[in-house]
Amino acid sequence: MNEATNEIIDETSRANGIGYMDGRYMPRERLALPMTDIGFKLCDMTYDAIHVRNGAFFRLDEHLDRFARSIEKRRFNFAPSREEVRQVLHQCVRQSGLRDSMTMLIATRGDPQGPTLDLRNCKSRFIAWAAPYYRIVTEREMTQGVAVAISSVPRVSPDSIDPTVKNFARIDFADALFDAYERGCEHAILLDRDGFVTEGRGWNLFALYGGVLVTPDNGVLEGITRRTVLALCDRSNVTAKVAKLSAAELLDADEVFMASTAGGIMPIRKIDDRVIGDGPPGPVTRRLSEAYWALHDEPGYSSAVNYDA
Amino acid sequence: MNEATNEIIDETSRANGIGYMDGRYMPRERLALPMTDIGFKLCDMTYDAIHVRNGAFFRLDEHLDRFARSIEKRRFNFAPSREEVRQVLHQCVRQSGLRDSMTMLIATRGDPQGPTLDLRNCKSRFIAWAAPYYRIVTEREMTQGVAVAISSVPRVSPDSIDPTVKNFARIDFADALFDAYERGCEHAILLDRDGFVTEGRGWNLFALYGGVLVTPDNGVLEGITRRTVLALCDRSNVTAKVAKLSAAELLDADEVFMASTAGGIMPIRKIDDRVIGDGPPGPVTRRLSEAYWALHDEPGYSSAVNYDA
Repeated sequence: MNEATNEIIDETSRANGIGYMDGRYMPRERLALPMTDIGFKLCDMTYDAIHVRNGAFFRLDEHLDRFARSIEKRRFNFAPSREEVRQVLHQCVRQSGLRDSMTMLIATRGDPQGPTLDLRNCKSRFIAWAAPYYRIVTEREMTQGVAVAISSVPRVSPDSIDPTVKNFARIDFADALFDAYERGCEHAILLDRDGFVTEGRGWNLFALYGGVLVTPDNGVLEGITRRTVLALCDRSNVTAKVAKLSAAELLDADEVFMASTAGGIMPIRKIDDRVIGDGPPGPVTRRLSEAYWALHDEPGYSSAVNYDA
Repeated sequence: MNEATNEIIDETSRANGIGYMDGRYMPRERLALPMTDIGFKLCDMTYDAIHVRNGAFFRLDEHLDRFARSIEKRRFNFAPSREEVRQVLHQCVRQSGLRDSMTMLIATRGDPQGPTLDLRNCKSRFIAWAAPYYRIVTEREMTQGVAVAISSVPRVSPDSIDPTVKNFARIDFADALFDAYERGCEHAILLDRDGFVTEGRGWNLFALYGGVLVTPDNGVLEGITRRTVLALCDRSNVTAKVAKLSAAELLDADEVFMASTAGGIMPIRKIDDRVIGDGPPGPVTRRLSEAYWALHDEPGYSSAVNYDA
C-alpha cells in the first residue's frame, strides 16, 4: 500500500500539505473519509499528531510507539508496520516541502465487509498527512496569555472511553467550548465527575505552586509534550508531581500553562474570573518553554526529514 | 444548494443508493467527509435515520422534528430548512428507485473558517442518503432471537454527551461489542454508572413483566420506534412504563426485544447466560411487531415517495 501512486501536485497545494490514504498520496485538502467507515459512524478510530520543526520530527519514536499501542488497544484487524507509518509520514512532509509542519496519523475501523456490522470483519484504514505547523492559540494569546473557562460539562469518564487512546469522540469538548465562549474565553478545561481537573481539547494542563509543578494524574491523554515537560522539571529546579488537582486549587496556582504538540508550552492568563499570578508568562513557564524548544536541537529527540530523496 | 447538479448514474449504482452532499447528488458509495470537517475531528455532528417501506417514509415528520431540534441543540451556524431536508430525502429515494430504503440525515459542524478553531466560525454541512433497507440483526436472529451481552463498559453519561441528540461518539458501544463477541453474543447492552439498563448501539430496549412493558427512562435516545411501541401498547392490552430497569430485573423479564428504525421490533432470545421466557418471539413481542408494521398502512404515519417526478 506504500507505492508511490502519485499525481502531479502544484506548488500551492504542496504548501498546504500532502495527505496519504488507501495507498495514495494527494493534496491534503482532498483527503476525505468514506461515509461507510466505522471510524466515522462509531468514532471507532485513533490518531496521533507529531510536529516537524526546522525540518526534523520531534520525538517521532515516542509518537510511533503510542500510535501502535492505540491501534492494538482498539483491536483493528489491520495495522501498518512501524516502518510503513514512518515512511509515509516522512514522505508526506518531504513532498510538501514544509520545514515546520503538523503531521497526523489516523487509523480507523474501516468499512464493514459483510451484510451486518461485525467489528471483527471490517477492513481498517490508515491515513496520514502533513500540514503547515499551527498552534492551538493565537500569537496574541502566546504573548499575553490565554483566557480559559472551567466548564460545567463533565469530561467523558475514562471507563466509558479511554482518553489515553487518542480519539475524536469529543462532543463534550465542543459543548464545553460554547460554555467558554459565553464567558468570554476561547478555551475550556473539563473536570471529571469528582470535580478534579482533567484536560482541554488537545492539551494537557500544568499548575505551579512554589517550586512544585502539578499535572492531573488520570482521565487524561498521556501527552508527549506533557511527558517532555515532566522530564524537563529536573533540569529546571522544579519538582514534578502527577496528582489530583481540584478546580479550587487550580485557581490558586502561581502559574498555569497548556502543553500540546500544537504550540508547545502556552501560558494561561486567566481562569474564569481569576487572573493567575503576576501576568504571563511566569518565570517557570518561560524557563520550561525555553528548555522545551532547546531540546529540539539535542540528539536523540529529533529525526531529520530528507527533503532531497 | 438544492439544485440538481446531477451526473449520469448507472443502474447498479442507483440500486446501491443515492447520496447528497455540498449541493450535489451522487452514488452513495462516493460520499466522503472532508478530513477538515469538525464533524469528524470532534465528532461535532448529529444524525437521523428514517426508513421507507413499500415506497413510503414512515413517520417522516417526527424524524424531521427531531433532526431540527438536534441541529438547534448543537448550535450549528447553518441549518437547512425543513422543506429542503424533506426534498433532498425524497430526491435521494426517488433517484435510487428503492421501494424499501434506509435513509440518513447528517449535519456536521463543518470546516473552520479562520486560522484557529473557533466553533462559532465553522461552515456547517448537510449530508443525506438513501440506501437499501437493512436490519441491524440477521434473518436468523429475527426468527430465533438475538443473543445479547450486558457489557462491563459503562455508557457515556448523558451530562457529558447528550444521547437524545443522535451522534456518532460511540466508542463505548464499539468496546462493548468486543465484550459481547468474547461471550458469543453479537450485540451488547450498556448500563449507566448506577447499574441501570440504557440501550444498545442504535436500538432501544423493552422488557415485559406480566402485562407491563418497561423501557429505560433516561440516558437513552428517545427513538421514534420506541415512541411508536409505547403508543401501540394501548391497542395491545399492555401497560407501558418508562422507568429505571436494573440488570438483574432485565434477566427476569418474560420477554425482551430491541426496537430500531433498522429492523422494527427484534426479539431477544438470551441475555448473558440467561434464556429469556419460552423462546422468542413471545406473544406480546409478536403482537406489537404486527401492530407496528400494520401502522405503516394507516394514514398519518406514512409519506409516499413520488418515483415519477
